[in-house]
Amino acid sequence: MPDTLSLRLRRRVAGRRVVEVDDVVAVEEPLELRVEGRTLAIIMRTPGADRELAAGFLLSEGVVRSAREIFEISPCVAPKSGAGAGNVIDVALLDPARFDPQKFSRHVFTSSSCGICGKTSIASVMKRRRPLRDPTRVSARVLRTLPRALEKQQTAFQATGGLHACALFSPAGKLLALREDVGRHNALDKLIGQALLTGCTPLAGHVLLLSGRTSFEMMQKAYAGGVAIVAAIGAPSSLAVEFARAAGQTLVGFLRGRSMNVYAGAERVKP
Amino acid sequence: MPDTLSLRLRRRVAGRRVVEVDDVVAVEEPLELRVEGRTLAIIMRTPGADRELAAGFLLSEGVVRSAREIFEISPCVAPKSGAGAGNVIDVALLDPARFDPQKFSRHVFTSSSCGICGKTSIASVMKRRRPLRDPTRVSARVLRTLPRALEKQQTAFQATGGLHACALFSPAGKLLALREDVGRHNALDKLIGQALLTGCTPLAGHVLLLSGRTSFEMMQKAYAGGVAIVAAIGAPSSLAVEFARAAGQTLVGFLRGRSMNVYAGAERVKP
Repeated sequence: MPDTLSLRLRRRVAGRRVVEVDDVVAVEEPLELRVEGRTLAIIMRTPGADRELAAGFLLSEGVVRSAREIFEISPCVAPKSGAGAGNVIDVALLDPARFDPQKFSRHVFTSSSCGICGKTSIASVMKRRRPLRDPTRVSARVLRTLPRALEKQQTAFQATGGLHACALFSPAGKLLALREDVGRHNALDKLIGQALLTGCTPLAGHVLLLSGRTSFEMMQKAYAGGVAIVAAIGAPSSLAVEFARAAGQTLVGFLRGRSMNVYAGAERVKP
Repeated sequence: MPDTLSLRLRRRVAGRRVVEVDDVVAVEEPLELRVEGRTLAIIMRTPGADRELAAGFLLSEGVVRSAREIFEISPCVAPKSGAGAGNVIDVALLDPARFDPQKFSRHVFTSSSCGICGKTSIASVMKRRRPLRDPTRVSARVLRTLPRALEKQQTAFQATGGLHACALFSPAGKLLALREDVGRHNALDKLIGQALLTGCTPLAGHVLLLSGRTSFEMMQKAYAGGVAIVAAIGAPSSLAVEFARAAGQTLVGFLRGRSMNVYAGAERVKP
């Protein structure tokens, strides 16, 4: 059984029939991500591809802008085994002096007066984005084939029903990479982190497929990886649409059967 | 149109037919949550029920243990209108001196040596939980009726396909409260926050239904609200199952059609 799955006894109730059976569920465990010895985040994730997850997280949070800025990503060797063994990862930066931990926390406590009410952090974040100028186009015909291609490869989901997936495709519809996780943000961080660590970012000329819904954060992570074309099987949020339009991204939603909705960057979708 | 929905122009591609139409999507906007003037979190949420969201967030994060500890929750009145107007909420505590902001951040930067590797934050969190002793039981027959009851009430989801929902039911299957949000954590915080603010917590004697999957955090939020019976239409993660067993909760997953899986606390489910 792969590390992403775990056996759990459960009782199945079907009509009036009750049976006790073993069941596989998706593994969820906390990962403590440390940068230069300081805890940046506790991420609830499916173990596996932790280096990629760390790299993708650092890129999308703006801690690093390229793989060159990462000196080393390594699991923290615990003095004793235990619940936390394998669940701590250490990142050393090439230039530790440039790392300002206070700057990179999204959930940090900061003292702020009421004067900033008129401007949200989002509004200011949106302003700083330079729109992506990827000339890549993809046909609606190819887009329609992607959900099935994802489904065929998404083995862990079929076993558990509990994993989000995302995948990179070529504009011709070839599946290039796939990652799964209990958290959709993690799945995308792993996918983009792998591209970062193998020197493939920015991911111009690619199509990203998401198994679920599209939020602001998912679009922002795709942007950090340089992905201009994002297609999702689920619905987008209002801010996902706004972000895509401001960031020069193409956003396709409800990619199901023979139809799809194009919410932004329709010029990249050939009907 | 309710505040939770927003109109967006999109292009619909169905086969070779392309039409430009207006579409409704679920609204996602950032909410800055401040406690005693300090920013505790930026929450990407669907506007509406912000007071309840704040209250539920504070309860599940352990900032407060009861409604009595909250002096006031009020929208921050911005000096000028703008993108952030209505997106900041201020919480005043009854005893501000007892609030230690450093203690309550999940994503805070802390200096930590490698010595804590052997113990995860989760392991220590799990240890402190006292198992819920709710003697309530619910029949499998009633459980089977809940997804349909949720669906009938979930109006915004039907319009957008983009909202998570959770609802409280009586053990007899009566729907008592329902909340929707682009984020499933938010939907649950709103539901439990409303109960907190109306003096209904701990929610012993209730059944909680979740529209999606069950993770550690969802079970932890349910626990904070005192909910012993959690049923979900989607799959649980391994840590959701572990948490439920340690916390004395009943966890039902894959509640679909006539069948369901009981992963923990099966003694509360009458076949």
